[in-house]
Amino acid sequence: MAEEVLRDPPVAEAHPLEGEIRAIVGHRGLLTGADAAARSCDPFYHRPVGSPIIVRPASTEEVAAVVKLCAARGQPIVTLGGMTGVSRGAYADAGHIALSLERMTAIESIDTEAGIVVVQAGAPVAAVQDAVAEHGFVYPLDLISQGSATVGGTISTNAGGNRVVRWGMTRAQVLGLEAVLPDGTILPAMNRLVKNNTGYDLKQLFIGGEGTLGIVTRAVLRLAPKPTTQSVCFMSIESYDKVIAVLQRAKRVPTLSAFEVMWQDYYALVAASGTGRDPLPADQPFYALMETLGNDPDVDEQLMSGFLEDIYEQGLVAEAVLAASERQCQDLWRVREGAEVVVANLSPFISSDLSVDTRRTATCVAEIQSALKARFPEARFATWGHLGDNNIHICLHAGQDTHALEWQIEDTMFSVLARYGGSITAEHGVGRAKRDFLHYCKTPEELHLMRVIKQAIDPRNLLNPEVMFPVEGQAAR
Amino acid sequence: MAEEVLRDPPVAEAHPLEGEIRAIVGHRGLLTGADAAARSCDPFYHRPVGSPIIVRPASTEEVAAVVKLCAARGQPIVTLGGMTGVSRGAYADAGHIALSLERMTAIESIDTEAGIVVVQAGAPVAAVQDAVAEHGFVYPLDLISQGSATVGGTISTNAGGNRVVRWGMTRAQVLGLEAVLPDGTILPAMNRLVKNNTGYDLKQLFIGGEGTLGIVTRAVLRLAPKPTTQSVCFMSIESYDKVIAVLQRAKRVPTLSAFEVMWQDYYALVAASGTGRDPLPADQPFYALMETLGNDPDVDEQLMSGFLEDIYEQGLVAEAVLAASERQCQDLWRVREGAEVVVANLSPFISSDLSVDTRRTATCVAEIQSALKARFPEARFATWGHLGDNNIHICLHAGQDTHALEWQIEDTMFSVLARYGGSITAEHGVGRAKRDFLHYCKTPEELHLMRVIKQAIDPRNLLNPEVMFPVEGQAAR
Repeated sequence: MAEEVLRDPPVAEAHPLEGEIRAIVGHRGLLTGADAAARSCDPFYHRPVGSPIIVRPASTEEVAAVVKLCAARGQPIVTLGGMTGVSRGAYADAGHIALSLERMTAIESIDTEAGIVVVQAGAPVAAVQDAVAEHGFVYPLDLISQGSATVGGTISTNAGGNRVVRWGMTRAQVLGLEAVLPDGTILPAMNRLVKNNTGYDLKQLFIGGEGTLGIVTRAVLRLAPKPTTQSVCFMSIESYDKVIAVLQRAKRVPTLSAFEVMWQDYYALVAASGTGRDPLPADQPFYALMETLGNDPDVDEQLMSGFLEDIYEQGLVAEAVLAASERQCQDLWRVREGAEVVVANLSPFISSDLSVDTRRTATCVAEIQSALKARFPEARFATWGHLGDNNIHICLHAGQDTHALEWQIEDTMFSVLARYGGSITAEHGVGRAKRDFLHYCKTPEELHLMRVIKQAIDPRNLLNPEVMFPVEGQAAR
Repeated sequence: MAEEVLRDPPVAEAHPLEGEIRAIVGHRGLLTGADAAARSCDPFYHRPVGSPIIVRPASTEEVAAVVKLCAARGQPIVTLGGMTGVSRGAYADAGHIALSLERMTAIESIDTEAGIVVVQAGAPVAAVQDAVAEHGFVYPLDLISQGSATVGGTISTNAGGNRVVRWGMTRAQVLGLEAVLPDGTILPAMNRLVKNNTGYDLKQLFIGGEGTLGIVTRAVLRLAPKPTTQSVCFMSIESYDKVIAVLQRAKRVPTLSAFEVMWQDYYALVAASGTGRDPLPADQPFYALMETLGNDPDVDEQLMSGFLEDIYEQGLVAEAVLAASERQCQDLWRVREGAEVVVANLSPFISSDLSVDTRRTATCVAEIQSALKARFPEARFATWGHLGDNNIHICLHAGQDTHALEWQIEDTMFSVLARYGGSITAEHGVGRAKRDFLHYCKTPEELHLMRVIKQAIDPRNLLNPEVMFPVEGQAAR
């Protein structure tokens, strides 16, 4: 697997279906040769998609016609979203055809009474957000990659982000969708209703399905009324028990929209970076950012000050600062969003995306770090996460060979995590990157049922054939 | 179908598998003869379950052993929850075995840090609520039937209720579950994490799956911090446009927990019932109850008074009353929960559970009522619903023959509803009662994919064989 990352795929020849596909999608609908190779399927560095052609249909009907043709020829397809995923879900092989929704970006309609937007799946998340903002709404998925990440990609990976504690994952935003099934059938499941108990909730299969059961082409998304006030406070905290107590108190604030925790290893790095990211001294083991988003300035101020009074009175924080302006809110968020400092200081690195019982997160992180240090003496870490939703990211540098050691590093990490009942991927998804480790957090019965469903809907394994499923024989715990 | 309701099932003989099943579950685990016939599977009147035996396993392992035996013999099973469902999901036939989880009621553990409860599926919803309340939490599913309705039944029907506008349907409360599959395999999918993107989210198949894909035996449920303040206001409103505007404003209140609307036909009935349910004159076309649940008395009062000031200033309400005590809150809720007044005045009646675009609900209701009146001159109605979530209930009396006319009444209603893109069941589920009407709101492609999934997981149609799926040949629109 690590080799797969480091090596460019072989240069591709012309594809035998090229002519027939061009007849469906036209010249603009097809990238070949150097044009196809110029696209990167990895957000961290340039890595060509790996397929000789990239098909770019302009409509659901074109997607369906291409899939029908491929089904008739037994041709596997890898679907591309915004290619910001970090689990190698957009990696294709020379024998695959890549299909991108990048020409299907329409914001079809906004229903301001119901709070609903209908979009094509290739629309970038930020484009949806901009479109609905004018109408007093917010699409509450909040990702660092939202300028490129698409609606279809975020649905297929059930993307998370910063505001899950308030609005939930992508799954909670999707009311309905349309998908093209592996045989080319268009599944119209564009439900617009909050409550609809008429049979299996089929959309759930495609949300987080990583494109293995169908290609999501359109979606009906729920919107939230756009908040008009924002408060952000930043705290240093002496112990993990106190972090938990602060989080518990924060959860009683109805306008809570984010609760992010940074370990000392992360905070010390960004605070020392000379980039103005040091609101508090770097002398405590934990730092937390709490945000509220509301609609009533007086009420919202009262909620935040009530929270701060309580945690001070109970001695739960060492120090805290409260942003006094929109600019200061952004500055505090910049402390949490210090990815480029991590890149500058820890490269080459491997990032992880773990989920573990909040109560035991600190113990689990400590045990993972010590297991990694024992095996990789050069190991250095930066640890932070969306603790309000169980989710932490550990970035690890283990020397210049870090990427080549990926399998060993992850196996070490996940074997500790498994003892805590954790998940190897909270929000990034399995892709190709994590499939061999799925057995650490899925039971054999779950893996079997996943295969039963895949087999029933995509019996010839034509859609995203290399993602999610462990290679047979590796699934036993 | 209407005949099915009116007629008792034939008296059942001893069942050929009785001895083998008794060997698995013991004497206490089996009800036969008069004991079985004494159980009613309908909440409105006594209707024996219809199966000659009711199996009551005491553990997941016993459920699995019974299902394995039945699978080997091709014996269909109907799973029973609290038998409060109104879609006839618990009706069995003489050829079926009924399986009840009523002996599996343990509240296994409460994790107060994560806000999680682990329960057996036979536990009544109210028992879960009582158990977690002591620890400062609420299980936010709020149903009139919660004393009897079970965790397993509410999961299998994706139950809704009064507080969906704040906390979502049952689907949003379930983190993980354990189910026994049609071949007797135990599927352990007891996820406890808010974020977990490791493969297909299998639990979604069983939530709202009406027991057709597996028998839910245990669950991990999310809890919310228990609110400490409650405000309820009751309003009369001159037009439906104003109802929508009030709802839009209410949705900006972060502590909003219910928004219920009553049509004049409902309100006039309960207000005139002499049961102290007349907080406002019955002279307006619409009435709304709004509730907030919060944690800070000052803030919560401010939020509610801000809301009331705004809607008064904008001329959106005719009159409004605000409850000044817990007792008054209950009294206002009693106006909305006037089921027994409806029963007393409209019996025999048929209740419905529609979901339709909020903007067009009033027009749709008017059109449904006029279509019904044209066909059934004696028709009288009581209309109300959880408008914050698109969901309305129309109760209809069409003379003494109402029950015998059920099919014609529902077909009339649903054929109007279909033109509005509505759902024939928002929260009650399909069961046996609505399966022949599913084509009004599901596309043939959706029905086909539902069948593909059912066929893959339960190829011999052994679990709840008579619910959800339209009889073949009736599915075409």
